[in-house]
Amino acid sequence: MSADVALVNATVATMEGHGYGLLEGASIGILDGIIDSVGPGRPQAADIVDLGGRLVTPGLIDAHTHLVFGGNRAREFELRLGGATYAELNESGGGIRSTVRATRAASTDDLVGDATRRLGWLVGNGATTVEVKTGYGLDVATELRMLEAIDRLRGGPADIHATLLAAHTVPHEYADDRAGYVQLVVEELIPSSVGLAQSVDVFVETIGFTAQEADQVLAAGVAAGLRASVHADQLTLGDGCHLAARYGARSADHLEHADAAAVEVLASSGTVPVLIPGASSFLDEPARPPVDLLRDHGLQIAVATDLNPGTSPTASLPLAMHLSCVRFGLTPLEALHGTTTAAAAALGLSDRGRVHEGQRADLAVWDVTHPSELSYWVGAPLCTTTFVAGAMTKELA
Amino acid sequence: MSADVALVNATVATMEGHGYGLLEGASIGILDGIIDSVGPGRPQAADIVDLGGRLVTPGLIDAHTHLVFGGNRAREFELRLGGATYAELNESGGGIRSTVRATRAASTDDLVGDATRRLGWLVGNGATTVEVKTGYGLDVATELRMLEAIDRLRGGPADIHATLLAAHTVPHEYADDRAGYVQLVVEELIPSSVGLAQSVDVFVETIGFTAQEADQVLAAGVAAGLRASVHADQLTLGDGCHLAARYGARSADHLEHADAAAVEVLASSGTVPVLIPGASSFLDEPARPPVDLLRDHGLQIAVATDLNPGTSPTASLPLAMHLSCVRFGLTPLEALHGTTTAAAAALGLSDRGRVHEGQRADLAVWDVTHPSELSYWVGAPLCTTTFVAGAMTKELA
Repeated sequence: MSADVALVNATVATMEGHGYGLLEGASIGILDGIIDSVGPGRPQAADIVDLGGRLVTPGLIDAHTHLVFGGNRAREFELRLGGATYAELNESGGGIRSTVRATRAASTDDLVGDATRRLGWLVGNGATTVEVKTGYGLDVATELRMLEAIDRLRGGPADIHATLLAAHTVPHEYADDRAGYVQLVVEELIPSSVGLAQSVDVFVETIGFTAQEADQVLAAGVAAGLRASVHADQLTLGDGCHLAARYGARSADHLEHADAAAVEVLASSGTVPVLIPGASSFLDEPARPPVDLLRDHGLQIAVATDLNPGTSPTASLPLAMHLSCVRFGLTPLEALHGTTTAAAAALGLSDRGRVHEGQRADLAVWDVTHPSELSYWVGAPLCTTTFVAGAMTKELA
Repeated sequence: MSADVALVNATVATMEGHGYGLLEGASIGILDGIIDSVGPGRPQAADIVDLGGRLVTPGLIDAHTHLVFGGNRAREFELRLGGATYAELNESGGGIRSTVRATRAASTDDLVGDATRRLGWLVGNGATTVEVKTGYGLDVATELRMLEAIDRLRGGPADIHATLLAAHTVPHEYADDRAGYVQLVVEELIPSSVGLAQSVDVFVETIGFTAQEADQVLAAGVAAGLRASVHADQLTLGDGCHLAARYGARSADHLEHADAAAVEVLASSGTVPVLIPGASSFLDEPARPPVDLLRDHGLQIAVATDLNPGTSPTASLPLAMHLSCVRFGLTPLEALHGTTTAAAAALGLSDRGRVHEGQRADLAVWDVTHPSELSYWVGAPLCTTTFVAGAMTKELA
């Protein structure tokens, strides 16, 4: 059978098994957007692309982003570093509230435009699948507009996974009625998001939602057919991992303060830990996730950018991979699994993350000679192109 | 008088004074590679470039790089994170010795080719002046070939400042004759580098050179007409800053372990501290340079990438600026002075670093609305083009 496209003369990191699964001088045949063949042969194809020995990896998967938001918080970053206290920042309208205000004020077109630009940054650095959360609307109209904005990113240069994170923080107007906000999420937002969102997420944290509140949200989300995901143990040890396990969550994210019991329940439930080194770096956070425990339990470990305006304005998965190595001690091999095989698992997707016959033809091409370089160079433009379901996002130079 | 080029409709961060020196809706006239006018008027010019409100800053200046080297150390990075001990890495030929071996083995053409690629990374992220050190040859032939390679980078997309760092480490073959190596540097390398190098540098450190050895090198270098620069107090507190002051060094670099006395001598000698957040991040180094002391003494603080294969494979000044904020507590304003006005001072250059009449027309154009964003976004491709002495390095989209 003849392929539509054949990539020839490639070094392929298939990510099969626990290593890189390296093949040198290999070809990849693509038919109908699916990988049709991988190996030493040279497939027949209408379109032959000679990669000149360049590295091909699975397209990278960003399993945790807040890509859609109004404004940015660069000025707040400047004020904070200039010595403004948290109270002063709050008074000047800073913090997540400022992003909620800017997001509510932005038109859906503007939300889509800004997110498209940032999606281009991620794709330019090798991403082909990007999870995107809501959570800066915190009212029915704006959360649904965020879901609409996320939906409008589909058909672009990356496959999109939408997550309802209405339980990101309790909005100002519900400060004295937390139960009322949880009720709004459970009774209005979750039902309205079915068909638009694939997952439901909760920020389980002292400054977010209690275990009891999160339990209500996750129960309603899972009952509505959404996959659960949890922001767990970022700032303090809480019940996030236990809740994730209870609801068979696809992922538990952050984990800087997770303990052995938390890791054990993740292992028992098959929930994938997603590490967020960008936020750790941005916050200069001394606590580190329990990577050795995660390894001891044989867990797949995903790595994501957490691209967001407040704690991780991180536009590159290779940079997140680098930071996961220097801050959390992952190896470059683990970091690349973290944005391919493990990230696919963190999104509950089995059709991508490896270069293998039958997988989606989501691929990234890199101007390096060995995949360890992806986590090594810092801020270098190494990705020369990506393929999403077999379609090239930019021409090879 | 009519300009050659006029950039119109720009937001300009002139970096005049202690602030950003922001001008909105401004124009910049360029004549014979020099800034001829800056302000609200619209100069007559043969070539008008409408920036559509984009931000213009002085072209960024990287005051500390090791851009020229053979090979890379990505595999060593992988081995180290996989748990290999320092002894095992050494046995497997790792560490700086591996870069020395690869640099000696590389042809000058290959050294130039690899460095040109990495220079493109820096320029793509806004750099227009780049300092480049030798120090991976450590014999007369290879140190001079490194200077030749650096010289061949001139006339490219950035202005180049060459620094002889023959005193980077004692080469293997002189392990039992340190004095012999210092003598080689003083009597052969320094005299041979006159006319090719602008500066002489020494790594003053327990694993580098003693104060006494460094004193000999700096004395010889300064006597030969080179400007002094010193790697000081990176891993331990030493005499680097005191030596820098004694020789009127243009810069003292790293300073993680500098104390109050070290800062005082820098202030008294007008030596510019150059901070290296990329190496701090790569090594996950808990010690931080004494930024408050530097501020208290009114010192200009420069920020550089230290682009090198062993401890800072950092390809972007905005990323170094970001890391200087989150790790060292600089403000985005200080970080931008760190790569413009202070970096120019660190290289002893008074003709660049500000957007001002009479300065070189070295400029960077950015797709942001406020200069604080340059230190805020992490790994985003914000630079749309640069001008070096008035010549555009890539067309504006």
